[in-house]
Amino acid sequence: MQEDSLKWSNRSPGQGHISIVGLGPGGPQDMTPRATEALAQAKVVVGYRPYIALLGELAASKEVVATGMTAEVERCQEAVRRAAQGQRVAVISSGDAGIYGMAGLVLQILHQEDRAGRIGVEVVPGVTAATAAAAALGAPLMHDFAVISLSDRLTPWETIARRLNLAAQGDFVIVLYNPKSKTRTWQLSSAQEIILQYRSPATPVGVVRQAGRPGQQVWISDLASFLSLPVDMLSTVIIGNSQTQVLGKWMVTPRGYEL
Amino acid sequence: MQEDSLKWSNRSPGQGHISIVGLGPGGPQDMTPRATEALAQAKVVVGYRPYIALLGELAASKEVVATGMTAEVERCQEAVRRAAQGQRVAVISSGDAGIYGMAGLVLQILHQEDRAGRIGVEVVPGVTAATAAAAALGAPLMHDFAVISLSDRLTPWETIARRLNLAAQGDFVIVLYNPKSKTRTWQLSSAQEIILQYRSPATPVGVVRQAGRPGQQVWISDLASFLSLPVDMLSTVIIGNSQTQVLGKWMVTPRGYEL
Repeated sequence: MQEDSLKWSNRSPGQGHISIVGLGPGGPQDMTPRATEALAQAKVVVGYRPYIALLGELAASKEVVATGMTAEVERCQEAVRRAAQGQRVAVISSGDAGIYGMAGLVLQILHQEDRAGRIGVEVVPGVTAATAAAAALGAPLMHDFAVISLSDRLTPWETIARRLNLAAQGDFVIVLYNPKSKTRTWQLSSAQEIILQYRSPATPVGVVRQAGRPGQQVWISDLASFLSLPVDMLSTVIIGNSQTQVLGKWMVTPRGYEL
Repeated sequence: MQEDSLKWSNRSPGQGHISIVGLGPGGPQDMTPRATEALAQAKVVVGYRPYIALLGELAASKEVVATGMTAEVERCQEAVRRAAQGQRVAVISSGDAGIYGMAGLVLQILHQEDRAGRIGVEVVPGVTAATAAAAALGAPLMHDFAVISLSDRLTPWETIARRLNLAAQGDFVIVLYNPKSKTRTWQLSSAQEIILQYRSPATPVGVVRQAGRPGQQVWISDLASFLSLPVDMLSTVIIGNSQTQVLGKWMVTPRGYEL
């Protein structure tokens, strides 16, 4: 049993430390004080360039290690290297660092390279895209849901398709992360096709672009038509279950209370 | 399309307003500034008594409408009634208000009783128990996951069992909310039995009690043995997928990067 996860590490100055920080959707209004504090304490900030940009003033006076989108391994190795040298490092992800973010990779590399456990580690949770998008749409996640990434960069499409099938069969609300990018263009319509085998074309579908950021865009459509919306890699797609309703401008999945 | 979801409502003083606020796991360190601000603006705070207690000073000088656990409908109706009278109301949930929280119910009641849309509404997302628990365990949610509540108060057990079956078949990481209470005692072992049909007894299972609160307790066990842990209604249970590993004191589901 670990009971120390909530405490700040108070180690000797020579001891390195990594905070793996979820920034939330992007605005300072949705970043937790614990995340802000972890960033303030860090001397080095490691992350994907557009997320560093979200930090604004918080990144000022820090050393910044920024790399492009597909350099995740390199970036986390650099973070561990810096911490092993005794530096205080923050590795940032947007949303929650533990959901398709950097937390797993950092812990895997730490386990390989710091078996003595000399580097202090802390994972700071954040508001993930699923809940930020849900809040903008109303309350689509009030019942059981499945979170599926449509990116087949690291996962075979067969696995993703199988999960879409089973989640649709189970009448889970389905949250799609990474629904589409410039190079991944067919996966979303393939997902639609799979889900339509089990769910009505009239099922409400919500799309939120830039959830929780300035310029946020919110659409409520349905399973038959949502492909016409401008979904991209900054979008989260939420597909309702058989009970999901559109109530005025809100998308709501009732939990089952008698009204 | 709605683009106003991020803006604060600036309505005339006589106009009522409801903020549906996710407090995060409970400590002020994990509550977003947007949630804090919504509470500061409210004159009336509506919620389940133990959650009101989490607010501490933030609830001082507010009128508090607190009720017991099963009075959700009554509580949300009272919130809408107050807002219809022109008051500024915050309805609070722990975690994220849109995940097994109060957001859906408030929007349903608003839709019934305020078809003219005179009451301003805002849903403020928070850090949900799944991500708070995941952060305490390491990084178990790095791949696709399903969130399932084991409470059969509002959902037939057959539906829950079916979802457990399909999520286990799909090799989703499975997050169990409401795993057990004083009166609901057999559901967790029934869930274990279902998942064991598809997953090895050695599959890592993490249990976090009071995630993100003082007194947080964290255990890493496996699918064969986790029932011996003191799981209760303050606990979140995370069952790994076929790839999930225990790395030192962390539970990690690799996303698939080559190391």
